Amino acid sequence: MRPSKRQPDELRRVSIERAVSLHAEGSCFIKFGNTHVLCTASLEERVPPWLKGQQRGWVTAEYAMLPRATSERTRREVTRGSPSGRTQEIQRLIGRALRAVVDLPKLGERQITVDCDVIQADGGTRTAAITGAWVALHDCIQWMRLREMVKDGVLRDQVAAISCGLYNGHAVLDLDYAEDSNADADANFVMTGSGGLVEVQGTAETVPFSQDSFDNLMALAKKGIGELVQLQKLTVA
Amino acid sequence: MRPSKRQPDELRRVSIERAVSLHAEGSCFIKFGNTHVLCTASLEERVPPWLKGQQRGWVTAEYAMLPRATSERTRREVTRGSPSGRTQEIQRLIGRALRAVVDLPKLGERQITVDCDVIQADGGTRTAAITGAWVALHDCIQWMRLREMVKDGVLRDQVAAISCGLYNGHAVLDLDYAEDSNADADANFVMTGSGGLVEVQGTAETVPFSQDSFDNLMALAKKGIGELVQLQKLTVA
Amino acid sequence: MRPSKRQPDELRRVSIERAVSLHAEGSCFIKFGNTHVLCTASLEERVPPWLKGQQRGWVTAEYAMLPRATSERTRREVTRGSPSGRTQEIQRLIGRALRAVVDLPKLGERQITVDCDVIQADGGTRTAAITGAWVALHDCIQWMRLREMVKDGVLRDQVAAISCGLYNGHAVLDLDYAEDSNADADANFVMTGSGGLVEVQGTAETVPFSQDSFDNLMALAKKGIGELVQLQKLTVA
Amino acid sequence: MRPSKRQPDELRRVSIERAVSLHAEGSCFIKFGNTHVLCTASLEERVPPWLKGQQRGWVTAEYAMLPRATSERTRREVTRGSPSGRTQEIQRLIGRALRAVVDLPKLGERQITVDCDVIQADGGTRTAAITGAWVALHDCIQWMRLREMVKDGVLRDQVAAISCGLYNGHAVLDLDYAEDSNADADANFVMTGSGGLVEVQGTAETVPFSQDSFDNLMALAKKGIGELVQLQKLTVA
Amino acid sequence: MRPSKRQPDELRRVSIERAVSLHAEGSCFIKFGNTHVLCTASLEERVPPWLKGQQRGWVTAEYAMLPRATSERTRREVTRGSPSGRTQEIQRLIGRALRAVVDLPKLGERQITVDCDVIQADGGTRTAAITGAWVALHDCIQWMRLREMVKDGVLRDQVAAISCGLYNGHAVLDLDYAEDSNADADANFVMTGSGGLVEVQGTAETVPFSQDSFDNLMALAKKGIGELVQLQKLTVA
Amino acid sequence: MRPSKRQPDELRRVSIERAVSLHAEGSCFIKFGNTHVLCTASLEERVPPWLKGQQRGWVTAEYAMLPRATSERTRREVTRGSPSGRTQEIQRLIGRALRAVVDLPKLGERQITVDCDVIQADGGTRTAAITGAWVALHDCIQWMRLREMVKDGVLRDQVAAISCGLYNGHAVLDLDYAEDSNADADANFVMTGSGGLVEVQGTAETVPFSQDSFDNLMALAKKGIGELVQLQKLTVA
Repeated sequence: MRPSKRQPDELRRVSIERAVSLHAEGSCFIKFGNTHVLCTASLEERVPPWLKGQQRGWVTAEYAMLPRATSERTRREVTRGSPSGRTQEIQRLIGRALRAVVDLPKLGERQITVDCDVIQADGGTRTAAITGAWVALHDCIQWMRLREMVKDGVLRDQVAAISCGLYNGHAVLDLDYAEDSNADADANFVMTGSGGLVEVQGTAETVPFSQDSFDNLMALAKKGIGELVQLQKLTVA
Repeated sequence: MRPSKRQPDELRRVSIERAVSLHAEGSCFIKFGNTHVLCTASLEERVPPWLKGQQRGWVTAEYAMLPRATSERTRREVTRGSPSGRTQEIQRLIGRALRAVVDLPKLGERQITVDCDVIQADGGTRTAAITGAWVALHDCIQWMRLREMVKDGVLRDQVAAISCGLYNGHAVLDLDYAEDSNADADANFVMTGSGGLVEVQGTAETVPFSQDSFDNLMALAKKGIGELVQLQKLTVA
Repeated sequence: MRPSKRQPDELRRVSIERAVSLHAEGSCFIKFGNTHVLCTASLEERVPPWLKGQQRGWVTAEYAMLPRATSERTRREVTRGSPSGRTQEIQRLIGRALRAVVDLPKLGERQITVDCDVIQADGGTRTAAITGAWVALHDCIQWMRLREMVKDGVLRDQVAAISCGLYNGHAVLDLDYAEDSNADADANFVMTGSGGLVEVQGTAETVPFSQDSFDNLMALAKKGIGELVQLQKLTVA
Repeated sequence: MRPSKRQPDELRRVSIERAVSLHAEGSCFIKFGNTHVLCTASLEERVPPWLKGQQRGWVTAEYAMLPRATSERTRREVTRGSPSGRTQEIQRLIGRALRAVVDLPKLGERQITVDCDVIQADGGTRTAAITGAWVALHDCIQWMRLREMVKDGVLRDQVAAISCGLYNGHAVLDLDYAEDSNADADANFVMTGSGGLVEVQGTAETVPFSQDSFDNLMALAKKGIGELVQLQKLTVA
Repeated sequence: MRPSKRQPDELRRVSIERAVSLHAEGSCFIKFGNTHVLCTASLEERVPPWLKGQQRGWVTAEYAMLPRATSERTRREVTRGSPSGRTQEIQRLIGRALRAVVDLPKLGERQITVDCDVIQADGGTRTAAITGAWVALHDCIQWMRLREMVKDGVLRDQVAAISCGLYNGHAVLDLDYAEDSNADADANFVMTGSGGLVEVQGTAETVPFSQDSFDNLMALAKKGIGELVQLQKLTVA
Repeated sequence: MRPSKRQPDELRRVSIERAVSLHAEGSCFIKFGNTHVLCTASLEERVPPWLKGQQRGWVTAEYAMLPRATSERTRREVTRGSPSGRTQEIQRLIGRALRAVVDLPKLGERQITVDCDVIQADGGTRTAAITGAWVALHDCIQWMRLREMVKDGVLRDQVAAISCGLYNGHAVLDLDYAEDSNADADANFVMTGSGGLVEVQGTAETVPFSQDSFDNLMALAKKGIGELVQLQKLTVA
């Protein structure tokens, strides 16, 4: 019934390749099926102006898509002069998700910027970005740990994300573009390795949905994020 | 326990004043306690370029705050050259909420823009904006109905919104600024008059929250939105 | 003969409501008939970079209109990226008018920003803004005086403004939009409480005007500003 | 008493050189003492979008200063992204002054843009610009007349401008930079060849001024503009 | 003598992988050693406004670097609002290089945009971009040829590029970052498959260079581009 | 054969007038036939942020055209918000050319900005700008020398530039607009007084060119620049 023939609770094939960047302190290339995102974590010995002198660090994220990541070429945001509302929403979301699992005072007065650049898009770019961003962040913090710049405990937990939606009346996990563009409702869930909720965002695309439907989506998300968290664990082991 | 002495499930004093603008086709001034938002609905006989010739209309929203709506003066966004990420997130949210209850083909090739300008802010500006925007939109559509520009049924339902949060370990309804800036988690819910979910956005501010907590927030939201929907009904009666 | 049936030397109904903002150090809501402007004065313990270390303060103003303050909706300036020429002209005018009556060295190294936001427009928004801005500024300085941040004498005089114009060949006071858009010439006058001229701006809209006509406009302005100054005095008494 | 030893009612040495541009339909290089402005009039066979189909033309102006026209180098406005408030005020003023003497319907659906570029500045750039712009506009219209694109009567009158000010307590004509930066008040007057007022802009820089003072400034302006109008006449003869 | 131990006339290891994008009509991933560029060619059935109705097509290029392509993270250009001078220079260069080998009238009224996104940078990004862009363009035109949208002969020749420089007094081929940042002079050459010069850009970084030195650089470039052209041929065979 | 009847190796009539600005530390007005450029050198006692504390100065250039320098009026770059790619390319080129002959450490922690404003354009504006910029720079450094701000040797050599091109199959020197817009190839050469190459930029406009053709262009350039260097020498003598 799904265009991809997947089971309702079946993720796309997910892979994470670590240490793909010559320059970045942490990096990975994550694939959720045909959605491919390059995540790099960059360490800087400075914090944003509003954090100066507070003896804590900061973790932030930026998100962008290459122009031909999409099926039609998308105009570069630099040519319109500022990031779109969608881009800003997503990069704020990724940043909040990562900060939820970092002990910022233990990071010291430093900033880690995780760049999530979508090389190819087929739905679910923000959830792939969050899941990969955690790996890049982990490796950046490990890089610091090896240089004794930080002690243990900076990274308190894992964090990963998945989308779910109502498609043809059924709750399904990890929507690809074909499903996403025809879903009645879709929701993104961000959860920690220990199962806590970090972000929940659900939107009715056509008609309002019931609380029952929403509960079904959350159940799928728990299952999917559980699998992603396992893969992260294997990746950084 | 709440700074405002309210019960956990108690809204702030809410009032809606209709027809406050000399020029707009629909308008209201809505107060959620000290949060005051002016909502005006403007009708234009054109649609965005990408909708041309499709025989359906469009409803969109813009959101802004006066510089001294906040306790410290905020720089005008025009002086930085583009709306902030927060502003764009909110105006996209309001637009989606309104479109969820409008039959766009019945509107004809026209656009209604609902401007939500925060005159004074004390938490919950986006939920007050959505709740008031519906009233302005209703009156704009009624203005069209009186001129026989549209038939019945353009507006399919009511829509209203409220925030909930975990404050000092308890689930509370309709956070004001004092609560919002110290909440462990907060969530915004947008629901229709008939109780369907349109948008759910929950964020853990400090530590991840459990699904049980989230269910408590949703229960509070249902109660609060029920009351807002009643007030809307009385206002436009 | 005037669309509003007013006498040539008759102001619209003017009212000023003080202390309308929860947050601002000084504020008022001023109405010149259907022209409504919210004025808030915000105190900041800093001066612009070019004034640093000079032991004097600064007073500046910003001006904006809500999108549907006008009879047709006006696009927000933030969406075009910078304030229009008209907006900049007006906010520079308001700032100069206020600085003409403030003893800047006595203010200390502080800045007061007066925001004039037009909630509804029906002609004469800049003159209403100046007249109201003085009240907000007065209350902000009184707020400082009460906290012994400044001594007496910061505010040296009152300042108010009115427009005049040639309409159907006659000089008339306080043009509303219907008159303004059909006037042969219009002029804005800014004067102090003691009758000194601060700004004079006259423009021929269709045909050049004579010095005699100009003298008539100035005589009307003196009368009108005299009345506004009285109202200001009563308001802050 | 004046830094330049001029009499109170004495203009600086003024010269106008016509036809200085290889490309422009009309042009002149005007000097008010050390203030030098290049004025070019460019004809285009189109009108702004809001004038389309109304069978009338448009005259507009743009104004800019070269970065080192001033005694300290001024940053180019293109590097800050938009024209400053001052630039916009001046170019709007020049445009209004020119349109006051043009019969726009007789121009046909065409636009003339007069660019006023300040090559060197020593006070009074806007008045030199207006006075020179008229010459460039005249020659552009003559160029059209020779090609039988328009009939007689497009240009109804001359227009010229001068500044006056209160300097050391005396009313003086045509302020240079040394006077302008120390004046108690300054005013710009725009008048037609037949003596009608087009624009009057007076500003108190330090203390408010009296109506008598203002009348003195206007008398000086009349004399000065009379001389400029004579020079324009000789130039285009 | 070279940091990389390469011979003076030795290219880095170059590889080109074709058809790497799910969506683009033509694409490749090209590596010049540690410099990695993703090139995608996007076909659109429209031309720029200034080309409309002229029965010829257009080929253009855009160039960007991911923020952590460089050894220190570089701020995204979208956050500064417009492409830097360097970016614009490079994308204009790539566009000219490609257009030199395309028969634009045979393309029909269509535009091909080749996006060159630097995934990792180690010197020579613009020359890798040009060399890869030709492969992406070739495959896009082949895609059109298979659909009978164009006839043969649209692509007249190959085009490739390489940098050369004076490093420690010797002429060397294909500078990497370590050489580039210490070169006395560097030059970029763009040549066709048949050996014609398309672009020559040489710059003295420290001291001016002689014509002899320049001739040496050109000889190296010919050799290097000859090898690149062979690799392109094998790639698209 | 050339539209201007010049010999293939004949420059346009070149003139340089020194000290044309009241305010600038160095300035000249240079004419290459109908191409007229005003060059001013401005001294500032500061360096760009990235050079602070390095005990060396900086020389940079800015380039712009007046709107009606061209045969059709060109829109001001300030109204599009940022300098065009072409403008940025040219001002970077001028800056590099000047820095090639300046001993930056001997300049001290100061910046000289050379503004090159094209008053009238007829091809070759960038080469006229470089040639004139050197004169303005020379005079600025002499101004500093007279005030004992620097010692001898800041300016190590002269620098000048010329364009050459293939026009109707022949190599010609110093292209004017009529030639430039029809050339098969054009190249700009920047050389020092002692004959060293600073920049070489050649572009095939229609078909690739051979190395022989390129050598012909370089020979012409050497001759032309030799003459320009002589004229500079006479000018500053």
